[in-house]
Amino acid sequence: MTNPTAAMLVIGDEILSGRTRDANMHHLAGELTAAGITLAEVRIVADDHDVIVDAVKALAARYDTVFSSGGIGPTHDDITADCMAAAFGQRIDVREDARAILQAHYDKAGTEMNDARLRMARIPDDAKLIENPVSSAPGFTIENVHVMAGVPSVFKAMVASVLPTLTGGAPLISKTLTVHRGEGDIAGPLGDLAAAYPGLSMGSYPFQRDGKYGSNVVVRGQDAALLDEAMAQLEAAFT
Amino acid sequence: MTNPTAAMLVIGDEILSGRTRDANMHHLAGELTAAGITLAEVRIVADDHDVIVDAVKALAARYDTVFSSGGIGPTHDDITADCMAAAFGQRIDVREDARAILQAHYDKAGTEMNDARLRMARIPDDAKLIENPVSSAPGFTIENVHVMAGVPSVFKAMVASVLPTLTGGAPLISKTLTVHRGEGDIAGPLGDLAAAYPGLSMGSYPFQRDGKYGSNVVVRGQDAALLDEAMAQLEAAFT
Repeated sequence: MTNPTAAMLVIGDEILSGRTRDANMHHLAGELTAAGITLAEVRIVADDHDVIVDAVKALAARYDTVFSSGGIGPTHDDITADCMAAAFGQRIDVREDARAILQAHYDKAGTEMNDARLRMARIPDDAKLIENPVSSAPGFTIENVHVMAGVPSVFKAMVASVLPTLTGGAPLISKTLTVHRGEGDIAGPLGDLAAAYPGLSMGSYPFQRDGKYGSNVVVRGQDAALLDEAMAQLEAAFT
Repeated sequence: MTNPTAAMLVIGDEILSGRTRDANMHHLAGELTAAGITLAEVRIVADDHDVIVDAVKALAARYDTVFSSGGIGPTHDDITADCMAAAFGQRIDVREDARAILQAHYDKAGTEMNDARLRMARIPDDAKLIENPVSSAPGFTIENVHVMAGVPSVFKAMVASVLPTLTGGAPLISKTLTVHRGEGDIAGPLGDLAAAYPGLSMGSYPFQRDGKYGSNVVVRGQDAALLDEAMAQLEAAFT
């Protein structure tokens, strides 16, 4: 069985300039793997209308589901919602359901609504709102794209809102064997084992510790019994 | 003046599965920004031949320079060198200059050369080797693509080998003003200021601290005097 595929589109100059280190990708990767959805590609692009539109179209066509992060706040550099509407040929304007959610939030906080805040109620016509329990301004789902905030606490909350609505496959199980030998020593037998277990994926991730070479050999698959069998063979070969 | 553009291609299942958190992108982003090269896009893809070939072709055509990380070790899942050769229609085989570097390294370490280690000397015909002072196995430059290791210490060393050979523009200067008000409060005046300084880029990055909203307003540009002037205006408006 092949698991559903997903891609992530990270929108943000601040990550490309090295100012901020993205945290959302690593979080989403772990959540999707646990849910049996294969994260197949991530793209990080700048706050540029045409680049965002091109990227979302390419990813939405290629993968089952796309998650975006960033660019849905109230400031002039938040252009994601308009890009998503353009990518799918939808009209976008302040939508009453989103406006009501924001208004209730600001009324409760004693904050005034203004033009900038109202920008966060701009939602494409046929999109479905994604709940934001942290700061109320909603994300939205348009076609197969889930459009979410870049602030990590809000991103996490939105992922938690969306994930239960998706159909995953069997969760991917992963086991790691740490081998205290260089990759060059283990590559031959490891390649033979990988060929003997086409239903599993085997990867080798080298490291250096205290001046010595080692490698974490990771075996991934959905069949627990097969995984145990392969791990036993690996241990016999390398320890 | 427009700075040269770059893209990064991260090759590795282990990052997409959430097992490993990538560190190389953040490092490269900072180095390029300091060198006056704009990192415009990052793609993270799986260890899949066709996907890697497609991605490197797309990025090499769109940007001045491409940096890849990962997949050039001795194990069966290290397929990057062959993908790069395929992307640019070059022949690839064990190359004598690369073999000699590896042989000298293993002779010194008293380690035996074997088929797996020899894989690391597979270099496309017209590629130029990139020095690896950490573990000797070289990276290579093919057309406008710099192909480097995924192990962070080696990646860093290879970036240091390559960067001085590139022509950058004026370094991007960046200044940050932390405003202890919600983005919705500052978005209007900030948008006006951004429009008044088309030669600078202004971004707003919201945060929550101790239950209160704030925002880091980041101004980026290459003209230090203009940047100082805009920062003074920002401070007058928001503090």
